[in-house]
Amino acid sequence: MHTGRQVFVVKLSGSIFGSPRICDIIKTVRDALEEQKQLFLILVAGGGATARKYIQAGLELGLDQATLDELGILSSQLNATLLAESLYPVASRIIPKSLSKIAEQLEVLLHRSGPKIVIIGGLHPGQSTNAVGALVAEKTRADLFINATDVEGVYDRDPGRFKEAILLENVTPDRLSNILESESVQAGTYDLMDPVALKLISRSRIPTKIVKCDSSVLSKVFQGAKVGTTIVFET
Amino acid sequence: MHTGRQVFVVKLSGSIFGSPRICDIIKTVRDALEEQKQLFLILVAGGGATARKYIQAGLELGLDQATLDELGILSSQLNATLLAESLYPVASRIIPKSLSKIAEQLEVLLHRSGPKIVIIGGLHPGQSTNAVGALVAEKTRADLFINATDVEGVYDRDPGRFKEAILLENVTPDRLSNILESESVQAGTYDLMDPVALKLISRSRIPTKIVKCDSSVLSKVFQGAKVGTTIVFET
Amino acid sequence: MHTGRQVFVVKLSGSIFGSPRICDIIKTVRDALEEQKQLFLILVAGGGATARKYIQAGLELGLDQATLDELGILSSQLNATLLAESLYPVASRIIPKSLSKIAEQLEVLLHRSGPKIVIIGGLHPGQSTNAVGALVAEKTRADLFINATDVEGVYDRDPGRFKEAILLENVTPDRLSNILESESVQAGTYDLMDPVALKLISRSRIPTKIVKCDSSVLSKVFQGAKVGTTIVFET
Amino acid sequence: MHTGRQVFVVKLSGSIFGSPRICDIIKTVRDALEEQKQLFLILVAGGGATARKYIQAGLELGLDQATLDELGILSSQLNATLLAESLYPVASRIIPKSLSKIAEQLEVLLHRSGPKIVIIGGLHPGQSTNAVGALVAEKTRADLFINATDVEGVYDRDPGRFKEAILLENVTPDRLSNILESESVQAGTYDLMDPVALKLISRSRIPTKIVKCDSSVLSKVFQGAKVGTTIVFET
Amino acid sequence: MHTGRQVFVVKLSGSIFGSPRICDIIKTVRDALEEQKQLFLILVAGGGATARKYIQAGLELGLDQATLDELGILSSQLNATLLAESLYPVASRIIPKSLSKIAEQLEVLLHRSGPKIVIIGGLHPGQSTNAVGALVAEKTRADLFINATDVEGVYDRDPGRFKEAILLENVTPDRLSNILESESVQAGTYDLMDPVALKLISRSRIPTKIVKCDSSVLSKVFQGAKVGTTIVFET
Amino acid sequence: MHTGRQVFVVKLSGSIFGSPRICDIIKTVRDALEEQKQLFLILVAGGGATARKYIQAGLELGLDQATLDELGILSSQLNATLLAESLYPVASRIIPKSLSKIAEQLEVLLHRSGPKIVIIGGLHPGQSTNAVGALVAEKTRADLFINATDVEGVYDRDPGRFKEAILLENVTPDRLSNILESESVQAGTYDLMDPVALKLISRSRIPTKIVKCDSSVLSKVFQGAKVGTTIVFET
Repeated sequence: MHTGRQVFVVKLSGSIFGSPRICDIIKTVRDALEEQKQLFLILVAGGGATARKYIQAGLELGLDQATLDELGILSSQLNATLLAESLYPVASRIIPKSLSKIAEQLEVLLHRSGPKIVIIGGLHPGQSTNAVGALVAEKTRADLFINATDVEGVYDRDPGRFKEAILLENVTPDRLSNILESESVQAGTYDLMDPVALKLISRSRIPTKIVKCDSSVLSKVFQGAKVGTTIVFET
Repeated sequence: MHTGRQVFVVKLSGSIFGSPRICDIIKTVRDALEEQKQLFLILVAGGGATARKYIQAGLELGLDQATLDELGILSSQLNATLLAESLYPVASRIIPKSLSKIAEQLEVLLHRSGPKIVIIGGLHPGQSTNAVGALVAEKTRADLFINATDVEGVYDRDPGRFKEAILLENVTPDRLSNILESESVQAGTYDLMDPVALKLISRSRIPTKIVKCDSSVLSKVFQGAKVGTTIVFET
Repeated sequence: MHTGRQVFVVKLSGSIFGSPRICDIIKTVRDALEEQKQLFLILVAGGGATARKYIQAGLELGLDQATLDELGILSSQLNATLLAESLYPVASRIIPKSLSKIAEQLEVLLHRSGPKIVIIGGLHPGQSTNAVGALVAEKTRADLFINATDVEGVYDRDPGRFKEAILLENVTPDRLSNILESESVQAGTYDLMDPVALKLISRSRIPTKIVKCDSSVLSKVFQGAKVGTTIVFET
Repeated sequence: MHTGRQVFVVKLSGSIFGSPRICDIIKTVRDALEEQKQLFLILVAGGGATARKYIQAGLELGLDQATLDELGILSSQLNATLLAESLYPVASRIIPKSLSKIAEQLEVLLHRSGPKIVIIGGLHPGQSTNAVGALVAEKTRADLFINATDVEGVYDRDPGRFKEAILLENVTPDRLSNILESESVQAGTYDLMDPVALKLISRSRIPTKIVKCDSSVLSKVFQGAKVGTTIVFET
Repeated sequence: MHTGRQVFVVKLSGSIFGSPRICDIIKTVRDALEEQKQLFLILVAGGGATARKYIQAGLELGLDQATLDELGILSSQLNATLLAESLYPVASRIIPKSLSKIAEQLEVLLHRSGPKIVIIGGLHPGQSTNAVGALVAEKTRADLFINATDVEGVYDRDPGRFKEAILLENVTPDRLSNILESESVQAGTYDLMDPVALKLISRSRIPTKIVKCDSSVLSKVFQGAKVGTTIVFET
Repeated sequence: MHTGRQVFVVKLSGSIFGSPRICDIIKTVRDALEEQKQLFLILVAGGGATARKYIQAGLELGLDQATLDELGILSSQLNATLLAESLYPVASRIIPKSLSKIAEQLEVLLHRSGPKIVIIGGLHPGQSTNAVGALVAEKTRADLFINATDVEGVYDRDPGRFKEAILLENVTPDRLSNILESESVQAGTYDLMDPVALKLISRSRIPTKIVKCDSSVLSKVFQGAKVGTTIVFET
């Protein structure tokens, strides 16, 4: 990037919030920024247990799907606030709520000393935090989009059902799309990447990795080590 | 709906803006509201020629895809403003820019005399105005989502290439999804419905019609006549 | 009130969120509005378990007190959203975030048919949801401020420690202030009323009741029955 | 107007704020609305003594002209708040800060019972509250724009210098423009109408009266009596 | 300026948008900032062809003048977005929509490395983009206000009608005012400077140049060369 | 603080606005920042004479207490604007209106050259500018909170009534609380510290000084000299 800074967008699984794992993640992020002076991070917080709790309550109370999405977004923004305040002053305390506000915040922070992290939650109903991550990567022309999920990466088939499932080192968007559509994948049980996110990644050929949301794994990713699955594009 | 009002969400093809057809559409909408006292409309303006012009200019100037989306959204909001001011005082002059602002505006207007139309443009990058229409229909529990496009409805194959293409009266989301994915459909040439919009329609079983954006057709739809293609759900 | 409407401000204990009790409360509120056509409600949602969870996590992560207040406010606003969507269309879906926005919302709703409830959470760090309730009662010149807490009302001493504690039918602000300051009351264990709320109640002589946040109790309060403790002012 | 309501925009001289005259003005306005059920008012508060005080302080502290304009606008908005709260619930408590917010507020209020007055202050640097009044009259297609100033109307020459000055019953925009430009009129001493306001009045042929800001005069104007000077347009 | 930076406000003729000339302008601006490290620019985008198209459509649909102004402002802001994204990261991506937001943006950018351009469109109905440029120059105490129009500068009479018209090197505000008012100048045909802009220039004695909106001319202006017409003030 | 900067929050008595003393205060503040390169200031402007004037007018017009608070807040924000513009470019021109906006502004300014002062007024009804100062000190983990009032510091009894009253060098929150509650202190006559502010100071053990709002006193405080009364906490 023109500023000499390397921008990574990291979607963080919501499962780390309300878990002691968050402390390790915080430490890993701080260490990475300490070691790599040119690194700049945009963290996208998932909704996790709070989102599930409010969506479940909303379902029982008869709410519509768009409103359930909104409850999930508010929960992810609450997680984002907790994370941002904990990472402050390395992170900005401000949680932008729209793509243009994210671009604005980035502009303010990229060109000076001070906070080197912007943290966000969901932005808009009908769009997952994965898709938000991809959109932000597109807008910021990020060097890498890291989707830190609850699995090690992309398997050629459902690892929960097939012992012989193999973790793929590389995958094309088309193959990933096929894997996601295959019948062995149940909605919600396999939170790798949704079609909207994948479409954004494809249209802008965003360098993307799918890895486990674990402090040691993230540490390796920040150092450029090979982990998880990389989305590759045909030339 | 609890207010006794019937809410229709209508996605209007951007092609009517900058065309004399807009006058007929305006007249049709006014007439429909005059005749059906309980009707309440949410109109979603497409970006049309202005969007294409700015997106093309942006492409030539090397902008990223998310920003091109934003130029399209701003263009559709400009169209929405023109339409709203022309339909005022039957329509509200306010163009909401987020789903929650739309809900807020609707709340204000549904329970009293005065404007019976809310007009919006696009809301968020990575989401078409079709998807916006579906999302709004979901949030407002609309009685009908009308996607007024540049074709008569859904054909079983590309009518531009196959003379024998048949206009479908009904289509399931699955079949429509297959038609949209079939190789004969080129991106951008067949603006029926995108996968995100279709997913929202499916998850909330939103009553949906795909019709031509033409004043006489819309007039029939408002009167409950059979035109275009209806999306039907398996029970 | 000039509109012929009776305005009640009700602070709802956060303990009802994430509990099945919320369904009974919702039913009670709906019934009360059905029966009393002139009643208009402003509900203030407490932060409850979600607030405690995030404040606890924030404490462990070393956040400052003002930020912990902000996490509590965000949690109460999430609760307010859930409640408002569940009570819609009897309630407004909009959660105002400042006193002037509350006044604005009220103005819109008081003078017409449609939603008869405005729901809010906390507004500002350093100010409890109790104080928010009192402030809103002041600004809206409410007919009654109901503080629905986890106890039956005000006792002359701590009922947890003294068997012979007597539930007071009436209490003056001065006596309540003394009871709150007495040594037997531990911070956080007795969520009746904080000094700021009490100061606001006193300065504007706001008619106030302290009752248990229970559907049958609230039902009685809405009907004007004698329950809990009433704050009385010297003449 | 389509709602059957008559809309008057009244620019109120800032001199009434901080003066007991404000009570009479408030009474006159209340009475007029009581008598004329179809009347709807938009009141534009001038900055008065507070504006002069802060502009003077700003001048002494070396501020630029645009900032001095902003101090004047903030002062007029403070006056508008005081007036709106005093006229509530006949007036809306909300002080819109932009033309589109004024249109929004009007839309909400015109079509129902409840507040019949919207009150504003200045909107934008480089534009007097007179011009704001004209702009609002244009946007709302008001039936009358009343500029309530500190003089009885337009004289054919400066009444302070010429005993024989005659109060004009009618004046064309061109003649008024000439009078305003004539050498006998000192800047600031004769707050009738500025060129921007006059240009807006001319381009939209806004029915306009210039009268003294006095309760008995305003009362007559509201009743349709002949007072002050009327701007007439050539046909 | 206290920061050692030189601030130029440049009103760019709307005619460059939708024309290949924009590429040359972009290059010129980039080069100027590359060469003059202390230069900071505020660019005001005109509405151009898009504004004319929407204003014409609005006229045909019967809209009021204030709303036509708003359509022009929205169009100029769309142009500003296109230009800002194309000049990013030399320019800020954020398009401020009010004078105070412009001051805020400037404050953020002036004191550090990073974007050296803020781009805006129109701000408020009843005020041309010329006047906006003058107002911004006032508020930012700019070193120079450059009005880049469709003519070479100010002529002593209408160059379209009089062959012997002479381009003036210098002009006083009074003489310019007389030229603008002279009968040979038709509204809209001679977009030099409107009376409001001129009044702001006069009251704050803003150093102002009127030049052709052409890349080679702008290049010279940035280098301090003598081109176009300079507004001079009597001492 | 992590930035190496020393952050002081200073509540400035409203009495300096509209008084020539403001020039001395401005000079003192400029000098302090000139001398102490690491100093960063947050100034909280009181409402002073303007607040009293509008609150008095509001009382006479029958407004409620919450609205009177709002008039006081608007007045203090007007004072804050005047002060910020006068201290610009040493101070930021932006007046944040909420705690999170203050944190945002601080984040922008702390990590670079440029403005070293953020100026605010009141934030929320029911909360004094003293409490605002304490809240901001909490949120920013300020090194010192200076309450610059109209008296020299805290006396052991009311100095207006008792000649032998002694100025305390140190005071614990408990003792200060007792002094504030003692009968000799009339509401409004002794603007030292209100209970809410004191509670915030106590819960976060904010280093606090109470001094006279006088340029020579403030100059000493900025230099670390012993003046006024210091609030000390038991260990």
